[in-house]
Amino acid sequence: MKGYEKLDEYIDKNLNQSLDELKTYVAQPSISAQNLGLKECAQMVKEMLEKRGFKAEINATDGAPVVFGEIKGKSDRTLLIYNHYDVQPPEPLDLWESPPFEPQIRDGKMYGRGVSDDKGHLTSRLHAIDAILAEEGELPCNIKFIIEGEEETASVHLHDYIAENLDKLKADACVWEFGSVDHRERPQQYLGLRGICYVELSVTALGTDVHSGIGGSIFPNAAWRLVWALSTLKGSDERIRIPGFYDDVIPPTERDREFMEKLPDVEEEYKTRYGVKEFIKGLTGGTDLKMEEVFTPTCTICGLTSGYQGPGSKTVQPAFASAKVDFRLVPGQKPQDILKKLRAHLDAEGFRDVEITFLGGEPAARTDPDHPFVKMVVESAEDVYDIPMDVVPMIGGSGPSYPFVHDLGLPVVTMGLGHPDTRAHAPNENIRIDLYVQHAKHMARVIKEFAK
Amino acid sequence: MKGYEKLDEYIDKNLNQSLDELKTYVAQPSISAQNLGLKECAQMVKEMLEKRGFKAEINATDGAPVVFGEIKGKSDRTLLIYNHYDVQPPEPLDLWESPPFEPQIRDGKMYGRGVSDDKGHLTSRLHAIDAILAEEGELPCNIKFIIEGEEETASVHLHDYIAENLDKLKADACVWEFGSVDHRERPQQYLGLRGICYVELSVTALGTDVHSGIGGSIFPNAAWRLVWALSTLKGSDERIRIPGFYDDVIPPTERDREFMEKLPDVEEEYKTRYGVKEFIKGLTGGTDLKMEEVFTPTCTICGLTSGYQGPGSKTVQPAFASAKVDFRLVPGQKPQDILKKLRAHLDAEGFRDVEITFLGGEPAARTDPDHPFVKMVVESAEDVYDIPMDVVPMIGGSGPSYPFVHDLGLPVVTMGLGHPDTRAHAPNENIRIDLYVQHAKHMARVIKEFAK
Repeated sequence: MKGYEKLDEYIDKNLNQSLDELKTYVAQPSISAQNLGLKECAQMVKEMLEKRGFKAEINATDGAPVVFGEIKGKSDRTLLIYNHYDVQPPEPLDLWESPPFEPQIRDGKMYGRGVSDDKGHLTSRLHAIDAILAEEGELPCNIKFIIEGEEETASVHLHDYIAENLDKLKADACVWEFGSVDHRERPQQYLGLRGICYVELSVTALGTDVHSGIGGSIFPNAAWRLVWALSTLKGSDERIRIPGFYDDVIPPTERDREFMEKLPDVEEEYKTRYGVKEFIKGLTGGTDLKMEEVFTPTCTICGLTSGYQGPGSKTVQPAFASAKVDFRLVPGQKPQDILKKLRAHLDAEGFRDVEITFLGGEPAARTDPDHPFVKMVVESAEDVYDIPMDVVPMIGGSGPSYPFVHDLGLPVVTMGLGHPDTRAHAPNENIRIDLYVQHAKHMARVIKEFAK
Repeated sequence: MKGYEKLDEYIDKNLNQSLDELKTYVAQPSISAQNLGLKECAQMVKEMLEKRGFKAEINATDGAPVVFGEIKGKSDRTLLIYNHYDVQPPEPLDLWESPPFEPQIRDGKMYGRGVSDDKGHLTSRLHAIDAILAEEGELPCNIKFIIEGEEETASVHLHDYIAENLDKLKADACVWEFGSVDHRERPQQYLGLRGICYVELSVTALGTDVHSGIGGSIFPNAAWRLVWALSTLKGSDERIRIPGFYDDVIPPTERDREFMEKLPDVEEEYKTRYGVKEFIKGLTGGTDLKMEEVFTPTCTICGLTSGYQGPGSKTVQPAFASAKVDFRLVPGQKPQDILKKLRAHLDAEGFRDVEITFLGGEPAARTDPDHPFVKMVVESAEDVYDIPMDVVPMIGGSGPSYPFVHDLGLPVVTMGLGHPDTRAHAPNENIRIDLYVQHAKHMARVIKEFAK
């Protein structure tokens, strides 16, 4: 790609100014889980946008406010950029080598809570915008920012906010909050996220725990009721038995398989990293393993609790038992529909006594890997990173991309400054300065190429 | 019954002396769970026996020592009395109204750790022996005491001790460590205890917990493996599915049913006390409920633990899961046999990955309710309590009576000073002084009638 010399030069020369802005931004705690510093941080973000000439506003939601900003450019094409200003709690504090809210640069890295997830992404993107504004006087297209404050607490109000602001958020494409390189320094393009439906199943069988010598033969046992109910959800063949569970599944295409085939094999990595002796369903690696990992829906028990859990024996019959169950959904499936089918199934199987508490959900969302916007982002990346971007049509995790893809109808791409040791959500969260610069350069290209 | 006026008078007149001995005995902590004061207490018990002319010794075991004492009497009949000198830990201390190891008499009760379970039983029995020795110069029969120090930690070395000392412990009948009156002031004669086989089932499926977005579709899940394994043990019809589990069950007799019919109905009491809405197996009270409670073997989940158990959601696939499972056994079943059948069953069902840890067990044991010794004890009780004793052929709980019944071949009776608010194992453990006196009088009759 040609014509990026001046922008790249600006980005390199003015790096310290951008890092200083990031330091100030990170020094403002904004912990959504603890409702700490959110208003102050939203105000700071608004001012950061206004400094560049954005028209910015703070929009209230039923939770933390959303910062919205908009700037006009030459063409009438509009790029929507999604970020979040909230961060994870910094605990455990004693494991940090420097204080989490006093960002520090050591050995080519900046350390601090939120530098990677997601504050560095915002300032790096603003640095790219600064470069274009400085060198060219105006932006080549319109840019809108949507910067929420509840990403670390499941973005519970984001879908409603988007649904209520479809006109305001209208755009032609969307850049997601994060992105990263893998251990081979290869940037990753994640184009799909599975959905999720997370529930707690609980049973209260008695008014109190009872000595098992009394109750064992004649009283209902909460733990048994739970185990029997769970065992109707999925058999050891791994097939989920809730009637209609698979009805709306949109299967992957041959094209998806082509993309998955190109990705590195994960068999050995998973065996080593997670201590897997054998994969389930007879899987033995290769493309089948990679396909199964992301394109099938799941029913995972995330936790079980009942009765006595200490050392040795206690002869007690538990009054209460509960399980955390996480359904990962694939395109086509909807959390509310799965919830209804789960209730109907438990009732039909004789488990009206099993209560369901819905703990959150969102449908899957995908962007077509052959979309021209995706192609452009991938090609721009190679110009910066000198190595082709991996195109990953789907990953196993979940996130709030559904309203961007479906309510707003946008192709959504991931790009960013993460790296395998970035320690998001953990002590000593950090970014590599070299990747910070590369992300800004990639962003400058994406904005300019998108406008063409 | 005639001829007990002088003994009763002695027991009444010398009560304070016996209560003082109990106070000294209770003031010596002897907590087996914490290995605290056991040797000192065993020495004290030996001296208490020697004071009455017993030949006493302290026998080492692989755990706490056993105190054995023997005294000759007129006839060659021998009565074996089983007690224990260890007590439960006193915690939580702040709930005691007077210090647990500083026994105090208030409102006709003595308070202190172990007064009821089981120290008061011993001194009350010795008080009866003192009365006979004082009034008659010698005992009418031989008496042997076996007083162990690990009853509160499952009597783990008692069975071996008995098996190794069959000659020493040879006797014609046995008095059990405890007994009580119920809420109607009616003394209870418990003649059978179910056996038990307590296991922990555990699964380690991975080297570490994994994000459920990665592992859900392709890695084994420890919680699922456990749920599936458990669900093969017992179905919602409550039938235990381990092949051969019921093979050796000796069913109750018509005579057992006659005894059970006479006992008070438990339906309303259980519904109120334990918040039972509905009994299992379609039971609705009456004799069927009482029979089912004690004469059927069980498979009870006492505890479940795996993965995330806190509030809200955590998307994790657990590496580890475990369950505590308590099998209550009826006469004929043996814990080691059940353990073997459980292992074979899990293997056959494809659950070689489920580990079994044996946490303790003993077989059931019963004494024939029509045994002449039982009849004599029951009749003697009515002479003291002025109300017929309930004869309970079997209770739901378990205890170490198997070696007494089967290795030593003895009829075993329960008699004692417990009452519904005696708070054994709890703060403010207490005995009622009136029941202490009645137990001593009952004991004096049992010793004399037994010798005839």
